[in-house]
Amino acid sequence: MFQQLGVIGCGLMGGSFALALKRAGLVKRVIGYSKSPSTTERAKKLGVIDVVAESALLAVAGSDIVLLSVPVAATEATFKAIRHLVEPGVLFMDVGSTKRDVVDAARRVLRERLASFVPAHPIAGKELAGIGHADAALYAGRQVILTPLPQTAPDLVQKATDVWSAIGAQVLKMTPENHDAAFAAVSHLPHLLAFAYFSSVVGQPAGRDFLSLAGPGFRDFTRIAASNPEMWRDVLTANREEILKQSQRFRQSLDAFEQLMLSGNTDALETMIRAAAEGRAGWQMGAPRSTQR
Amino acid sequence: MFQQLGVIGCGLMGGSFALALKRAGLVKRVIGYSKSPSTTERAKKLGVIDVVAESALLAVAGSDIVLLSVPVAATEATFKAIRHLVEPGVLFMDVGSTKRDVVDAARRVLRERLASFVPAHPIAGKELAGIGHADAALYAGRQVILTPLPQTAPDLVQKATDVWSAIGAQVLKMTPENHDAAFAAVSHLPHLLAFAYFSSVVGQPAGRDFLSLAGPGFRDFTRIAASNPEMWRDVLTANREEILKQSQRFRQSLDAFEQLMLSGNTDALETMIRAAAEGRAGWQMGAPRSTQR
Repeated sequence: MFQQLGVIGCGLMGGSFALALKRAGLVKRVIGYSKSPSTTERAKKLGVIDVVAESALLAVAGSDIVLLSVPVAATEATFKAIRHLVEPGVLFMDVGSTKRDVVDAARRVLRERLASFVPAHPIAGKELAGIGHADAALYAGRQVILTPLPQTAPDLVQKATDVWSAIGAQVLKMTPENHDAAFAAVSHLPHLLAFAYFSSVVGQPAGRDFLSLAGPGFRDFTRIAASNPEMWRDVLTANREEILKQSQRFRQSLDAFEQLMLSGNTDALETMIRAAAEGRAGWQMGAPRSTQR
Repeated sequence: MFQQLGVIGCGLMGGSFALALKRAGLVKRVIGYSKSPSTTERAKKLGVIDVVAESALLAVAGSDIVLLSVPVAATEATFKAIRHLVEPGVLFMDVGSTKRDVVDAARRVLRERLASFVPAHPIAGKELAGIGHADAALYAGRQVILTPLPQTAPDLVQKATDVWSAIGAQVLKMTPENHDAAFAAVSHLPHLLAFAYFSSVVGQPAGRDFLSLAGPGFRDFTRIAASNPEMWRDVLTANREEILKQSQRFRQSLDAFEQLMLSGNTDALETMIRAAAEGRAGWQMGAPRSTQR
């Protein structure tokens, strides 16, 4: 049980975390800060936070658990704003989709206070951002990746594991480097491809007419193209190297498919499609590696 | 009201059409043929068809409406098998995802009997193929594209429009060429990209580990990668030219995004992501062109 949760950045992720902790009876009081006062006022009206903090630092004061849920690019400035109150024993976490840049910022700013920070990435979200969509069940049944450093306090890593588990998430630990390589492959590249694909369709002369004909396959394939632009600007920039590596692999795969289309080798084309189709049919979200076909 | 529907190819599409006509009280009897006798037996047990036909030709005999729901590559052979019973006044339709190749096959084989064939493409489907997934509601609320030729009998085009409308679909007419260009953009390319993307992830050394971390964005983006391999082998082959044109456009768009990622021009990157995100957020499946943002 925590006395006070400090939420810095009262959006979908931070708001949902606050609601989940409240629902699970894990926290007595939530104090929230956002850059825009109208956001914190709204969060308070919605019952997501109990107290409005006038600054990020004041959201930390008196809190024994703090969640930074700001755009990844704002992480370093946020650390700077709060570093004087980053005390041992208080659990600090973020929710960023990239981890190397966040960890680098934490190293630069927090220095000897680094032990209090447990970098976290919950694999959850919605296309509908903002506090109005905050949902106590957002993290239930989802994975949360923790990327602790050698300096991170082991008891805080345990506390972080416990709190995410208590709100229904499955906790995994890995290095920031492995995290960023993996998510470049399974999340960041698909977003880049969806943005690029949607842009290419809408940007052609008959694009609007084409869109009026699109069906459920298009709908699902492009759902992530509607994601938050600031967030994805930051992710595509912060994890650029790994994403471009994955894009190279993807282009080689696309080349191979197109070569078979051009050569008329329909048997080989079918074999490649079948491998993908059976692989995808055997995949299940959240299933551990060993049970994937 | 039709006396007898002949279904050639008792799979998801043909079976769902039969169930929809039955539910709407539009047909007295359904006769079905499939290459595999076990499929037609199953269709009969499930109540999708009433009578098993021993050949495609026998499924046409005595029918006043006939649906060819065979893989696109099998269309020409099917036309050959039934051409002697392609009579004026009987409505013949297909359900193929490509239309130029189907129309070319019809021209070659049916010749003076071409008037009876109304090429059709219902924008509906599931990843779960086969008669066991046939669903009377599959076409409700979906679009159906008809691509009649100058030779097509106008009264049969009207009949086709009426029967699809009666089972809840919205009917549009266009040329086979426009159809294939549009669906290369909004359906065929996304499938190709999804196959290529899934293959590239699963084909790398850590691919299986990466897959165990993938979340809901990945799930939706790759859903169509689980589509039917034979069908998509045929579509990617039959509409190759238009798909490769669309792929070129897509690659240019991807290049533009990656250039901005590399240049560090985060403002321009955000602008491009925002255009895609707002475009996608304003898109609605099945909405006419004029109401799309």
